[in-house]
Amino acid sequence: MSNNLLKGKKGIIFGALDEKSIAWKTAIRCHEEGAEILLTNAPVAMRMGEIKKLAEMINAPVVTCDVSSNEDVQNLISKAKEHFGGGVDFILHSIGMSLNVRKGRHYTNIDYGFNAKTLDISATSLHRVLATAMREDAINEWGSVVALTYIAAQRVFPDYNEMADAKSLLESISRSFGYHYGVKKHVRVNTISQSPTRTTAGSGVKGFDGFINYAEKMSPLGNASADDCANYIVSLFSDYTKFVTMQNLFHDGGFSFTGVTQGVIEMMEQ
Amino acid sequence: MSNNLLKGKKGIIFGALDEKSIAWKTAIRCHEEGAEILLTNAPVAMRMGEIKKLAEMINAPVVTCDVSSNEDVQNLISKAKEHFGGGVDFILHSIGMSLNVRKGRHYTNIDYGFNAKTLDISATSLHRVLATAMREDAINEWGSVVALTYIAAQRVFPDYNEMADAKSLLESISRSFGYHYGVKKHVRVNTISQSPTRTTAGSGVKGFDGFINYAEKMSPLGNASADDCANYIVSLFSDYTKFVTMQNLFHDGGFSFTGVTQGVIEMMEQ
Amino acid sequence: MSNNLLKGKKGIIFGALDEKSIAWKTAIRCHEEGAEILLTNAPVAMRMGEIKKLAEMINAPVVTCDVSSNEDVQNLISKAKEHFGGGVDFILHSIGMSLNVRKGRHYTNIDYGFNAKTLDISATSLHRVLATAMREDAINEWGSVVALTYIAAQRVFPDYNEMADAKSLLESISRSFGYHYGVKKHVRVNTISQSPTRTTAGSGVKGFDGFINYAEKMSPLGNASADDCANYIVSLFSDYTKFVTMQNLFHDGGFSFTGVTQGVIEMMEQ
Amino acid sequence: MSNNLLKGKKGIIFGALDEKSIAWKTAIRCHEEGAEILLTNAPVAMRMGEIKKLAEMINAPVVTCDVSSNEDVQNLISKAKEHFGGGVDFILHSIGMSLNVRKGRHYTNIDYGFNAKTLDISATSLHRVLATAMREDAINEWGSVVALTYIAAQRVFPDYNEMADAKSLLESISRSFGYHYGVKKHVRVNTISQSPTRTTAGSGVKGFDGFINYAEKMSPLGNASADDCANYIVSLFSDYTKFVTMQNLFHDGGFSFTGVTQGVIEMMEQ
Repeated sequence: MSNNLLKGKKGIIFGALDEKSIAWKTAIRCHEEGAEILLTNAPVAMRMGEIKKLAEMINAPVVTCDVSSNEDVQNLISKAKEHFGGGVDFILHSIGMSLNVRKGRHYTNIDYGFNAKTLDISATSLHRVLATAMREDAINEWGSVVALTYIAAQRVFPDYNEMADAKSLLESISRSFGYHYGVKKHVRVNTISQSPTRTTAGSGVKGFDGFINYAEKMSPLGNASADDCANYIVSLFSDYTKFVTMQNLFHDGGFSFTGVTQGVIEMMEQ
Repeated sequence: MSNNLLKGKKGIIFGALDEKSIAWKTAIRCHEEGAEILLTNAPVAMRMGEIKKLAEMINAPVVTCDVSSNEDVQNLISKAKEHFGGGVDFILHSIGMSLNVRKGRHYTNIDYGFNAKTLDISATSLHRVLATAMREDAINEWGSVVALTYIAAQRVFPDYNEMADAKSLLESISRSFGYHYGVKKHVRVNTISQSPTRTTAGSGVKGFDGFINYAEKMSPLGNASADDCANYIVSLFSDYTKFVTMQNLFHDGGFSFTGVTQGVIEMMEQ
Repeated sequence: MSNNLLKGKKGIIFGALDEKSIAWKTAIRCHEEGAEILLTNAPVAMRMGEIKKLAEMINAPVVTCDVSSNEDVQNLISKAKEHFGGGVDFILHSIGMSLNVRKGRHYTNIDYGFNAKTLDISATSLHRVLATAMREDAINEWGSVVALTYIAAQRVFPDYNEMADAKSLLESISRSFGYHYGVKKHVRVNTISQSPTRTTAGSGVKGFDGFINYAEKMSPLGNASADDCANYIVSLFSDYTKFVTMQNLFHDGGFSFTGVTQGVIEMMEQ
Repeated sequence: MSNNLLKGKKGIIFGALDEKSIAWKTAIRCHEEGAEILLTNAPVAMRMGEIKKLAEMINAPVVTCDVSSNEDVQNLISKAKEHFGGGVDFILHSIGMSLNVRKGRHYTNIDYGFNAKTLDISATSLHRVLATAMREDAINEWGSVVALTYIAAQRVFPDYNEMADAKSLLESISRSFGYHYGVKKHVRVNTISQSPTRTTAGSGVKGFDGFINYAEKMSPLGNASADDCANYIVSLFSDYTKFVTMQNLFHDGGFSFTGVTQGVIEMMEQ
């Protein structure tokens, strides 16, 4: 599917790790729809990941950026302006990391140093990117920013641990900054609350398989795939959605507004 | 437990059918807390129910009222003013009826005549009671009105059928009228979204047992009982909650903000 | 702007009255994006409106349909299947009517006969259309249904009167039916909560001018126009948004998530 | 008003600065309702505040506690257990501080070091208190924890600045921990979203006067006072609300569900 939805647009995509990543697929879809892309990821992800393969496929430069560093973000935004010869039209923030989850610490027993890092990388990073972009006037009029989130920001999924709090913070930053960037330059900022997705990042979470099956059974349309998410992001970067801002948009096959399904009830009756 | 929370207050309670009813228990608790009560129910419920037993226990008059009839509601309000020698301080609306559910019609195949009746009795009735009370100036300053609802108004529980739509309408009426009655006379109007409860009315719903078990497993505190609901209603009728209005308040042991529990995930992993 | 987003798709559009209508503009945009359209409206709107002009512009048949009549809806669905030689891919429900508003009755003093008609035409009509379509298998796999709503369903705007309750009911029906049609045939159903729009229907509402100015001042991007709404609807009918369902999507320039703006505060400080 | 609602209960109250504080008033009301209290505040607040006056009035010990220090929180919980000879029944978290607001930095230009401190003191502190209490088994069965928040966590109020994000984080922590403490020991955790209140802390916020007037005009019941908030907190600490948990409860005279009022529209029409 390609309809030139993003013809002439330029954008920055954070977080493409490997071909299972939503960011990876989004980069490809944006390219197919006519956009020029600049890729970025953390130093460690650059080493592990196959981002160079993607960069070649879509003819995109790659800039390393630790989103917890003001200098790195400043450098990224400068490089992007230089590369594109001006501002960008869209940004995808697909970044999340929890040291407490990695270390297997229970939510009720987290380390607060790790927690501060989790919040900074997974949520405050969006503020840093937007504040830097605003200062450098690096997003064009009616630009579109999307960050990926998860319904654990609204309802508790115990194994999601401190990432739930990080996503709540991310959604709040998206809303708050969406206000200011909207007033200033008609830039819109939204989050997409995506179905659980079998990415390399996602698979680290304990109980992920049981959970992904539960979500599948609880979603009238089934879980949304990474490919479908990429399509949805394209629509939000396009000019078809110019007045959508400060929203948290569920892309989850109906999971979030389903209380229970027949299938789940039947399991409970056994 | 009795703390004279409602000393000197007078109120109308709709919907006490038998001793399992939330309304029944609320009437008793309000009485224990020092309130005077007037009971009312539909003609058919009066015949089936044991409301006279309750009336004797708490020394309350009973007025028959078909809430879909303007005349009946007018008569009820007049009788209440007469009986109490003035306005009331609280009203409990615990009324719901779905002919399509009774007739076993699937949500996608409802009869629209039945549906109109469901909406009128289960939701519009609240408007009728409040509009009549306002016209007759029958609720005192800072009075409190509570209507019972269910989370199916926010998320789909398939077997709840058209009652989900009726409850959405009820919650909207509560909010809308809460605005006007608040401005006019500081009367507050709220809905309580209660755990599924084994009342005589509730047990009619298909798949109710499977569902009540599911809710129990999905609520960190377990399902809230009818007794606990009565206590919560007392708090909302009291002067401790005077600035709470136009809200939908969940009384469900945490069900509504729980996405999944360990217990449910384990069942899905089998 | 045309990107063939709806190439090969067929759809039914309710509610095009004149060239200010959102439905009118949506019909044109869908046509531009490659879709075939069937237009429908109420008998009275057909007489008043200029729908035939639109029909010629986009080469669409027109079928008269009173959405409160089971027979009319049945006839419409049959005609659509016949015309298209099969099912449709999308439906726009842009229908609302309040007799109590027209008659100038205050929300606290509505006529319940009028109110029942308001609910039936403005909300239950969506159920009637979807139930008929399901029975006749008239929506194709992954079809998309959109109904227009307003934020008064969540927060009170006093002059919006009983239409607030009708929109709450509409949103609930959308969610409930979205579940069932999703499970059955991957059909998605969403509502769009649109900025106040200067349509012929909208202008009837008391205080509309003061209100539209307020909304403009309270929206970081300004009010969304009918043209922009048409674009957004196109995106929701397209294959870019296949896993978005059972949602209420705000298309309002940020109004719904803005608590106050600097401009409004300054007016209050005077 | 005193009804012995908290007879025999023991609790910890954070954040009583002076007699305008919600925490101050809550301490007095809890005492009047029969509870025993332990007061705590930050070292700097202890020096500035008049907490000793309050301590004498209600015969409560005072323990200094910097909520950003694990050791201080540990010491507080130990002292509380020692003082009460066991666990507590309730905790009030009324803590918020924003260095970026104090320094007059605009939301789009915050310092991230200050921001981390804001999040830690205003939000993570709740996690620290609850985690420590859980580890020490310092909250009794069916205990109740309340934290104060503000609607800026849902909708943007520009001058509220980074505190909006901090409150979103606080509400998420409340929900997340509410799940775990509910499962473990039936402890409930809720936030109260209170009307803007003329406390010593609140008055520091830019544009506060214009804003408090706006909120007053936008609330059908008017703004809720600190006294009323104290009453509401008492109800949530009592046994009347045992199944209310993981909620964000608006105590704001209807502000949060009012879209606009007649008064505001009239100002816009001028």
